Amino acid sequence: MAKRGEPATDIVTAAVLVIGDEILSGRTKDQNIGYIADYLTDIGIQLQEVRIVADDEARIVEAVNALRSQYTYLFTTGGIGPTHDDITADSIAKAFGVGIDIDERAVALMRARYEPDRLTETRLRMARIPDGAELVRNTVSSAPGFMLENVIVMAGVPHIMQVMLDDVVPRLKTGAKILTRTVRVERPEGDVAPWLARLQETFPDVQMGSYPYFEKGILGTNLVLRTMDETKLAAAVKELWQMLAREGFDEYATDVHPESAAG
Amino acid sequence: MAKRGEPATDIVTAAVLVIGDEILSGRTKDQNIGYIADYLTDIGIQLQEVRIVADDEARIVEAVNALRSQYTYLFTTGGIGPTHDDITADSIAKAFGVGIDIDERAVALMRARYEPDRLTETRLRMARIPDGAELVRNTVSSAPGFMLENVIVMAGVPHIMQVMLDDVVPRLKTGAKILTRTVRVERPEGDVAPWLARLQETFPDVQMGSYPYFEKGILGTNLVLRTMDETKLAAAVKELWQMLAREGFDEYATDVHPESAAG
Repeated sequence: MAKRGEPATDIVTAAVLVIGDEILSGRTKDQNIGYIADYLTDIGIQLQEVRIVADDEARIVEAVNALRSQYTYLFTTGGIGPTHDDITADSIAKAFGVGIDIDERAVALMRARYEPDRLTETRLRMARIPDGAELVRNTVSSAPGFMLENVIVMAGVPHIMQVMLDDVVPRLKTGAKILTRTVRVERPEGDVAPWLARLQETFPDVQMGSYPYFEKGILGTNLVLRTMDETKLAAAVKELWQMLAREGFDEYATDVHPESAAG
Repeated sequence: MAKRGEPATDIVTAAVLVIGDEILSGRTKDQNIGYIADYLTDIGIQLQEVRIVADDEARIVEAVNALRSQYTYLFTTGGIGPTHDDITADSIAKAFGVGIDIDERAVALMRARYEPDRLTETRLRMARIPDGAELVRNTVSSAPGFMLENVIVMAGVPHIMQVMLDDVVPRLKTGAKILTRTVRVERPEGDVAPWLARLQETFPDVQMGSYPYFEKGILGTNLVLRTMDETKLAAAVKELWQMLAREGFDEYATDVHPESAAG
């Protein structure tokens, strides 16, 4: 982790694993991937892979083990409720080869919310936590998530996932932030691509992407420049605008500042 | 494939691979996964896995080969535009170990849209198609997708992806449709979970899931029953309602018909 006041230079990576038949059937539309992507980018963790798998133990174990070994952190969402199809906690325990049982710290958190007669055996399923895990607080409905080594296990309900992410993030190491500048050009990608390729050759350390959009019948392109180096980014953006001006495209172009995100 | 008029009974599966740094950075929010999930469920193809990877050849090749061997079909979105960061077609060729070059059929489709002087070398990059692939029509902006064996390669722009899906689906085999019934209960998941587990034991062939929601300050639960067998589904739903009535929960419950989807 960077010292306070100094920009971080190390790379911290992450993957997300979404667990749930309901996403794959289309019944529920995922709202967590985009939220987590924005959140991690903002704090200097690079999201590098996402997988969505069904509520199937073998699939979950396989994905957890593939992803936790490749990235600094793995965030999972979904499958930690009280019902028989909620198998994430048990699958995580299996992936790590550790035991799992009712965790008294989790029960204590749930006692604060539920009357004793409503803390049923079914609800106590949500207090099953793999051995060695730290809890992740759920200020919405009390049943916690957990963090086991580099794997963070969160709820699938977006509002609950979001408070869990807030709780766990201060415990994570963060790395260099990627700085982004977007230039929006109201021209088809094929018209701007040749200059972008030349610009990429001039600035090999600045990652350049072009993303077509289709709005109100117009095909346009967002040119996105990304790097951890502020000076190189400024130089590349300046050179891009000179290229656009030379080709007479500057009148179709708009600089989208990072603050106005969505670009 | 089922004969016309007879319900299909075989299982046809699929995976989706979303290719694009912009999704992982959060800059662009994916709109294709949910659309494809709904579409495939409707026609009797079961979406079983989704992955999102960066514009990185090694990552794409690895994911393509992992997914095309496990599922009946693999659908990819993104990375088939004209710029230097559009590397999907080349990565697919590499994954299959086949050549790739400008395809005259693709050029012909693009000629119909572009004036000769606008069909530049850059745009012709979009006519690069791996050897042995069939084209997938793009009625929005002409540059085609393609289908190579069981892998269908589509654009990332939602509107273009959607017309490509319409074009390719009639060529695919489809299987048994999964029938779904949702009962929405305005009670927390922990209150309904015990009965659902008992119902699951009575109807082992009906897949039962419970999905909490949080709306207007109320935690409720959607109970979703899924099976390919219409008779078993009807019996399970009937029994569920009897259970809800016995527990006095029927007044909090609503039957959500499949037509009103989102549930």
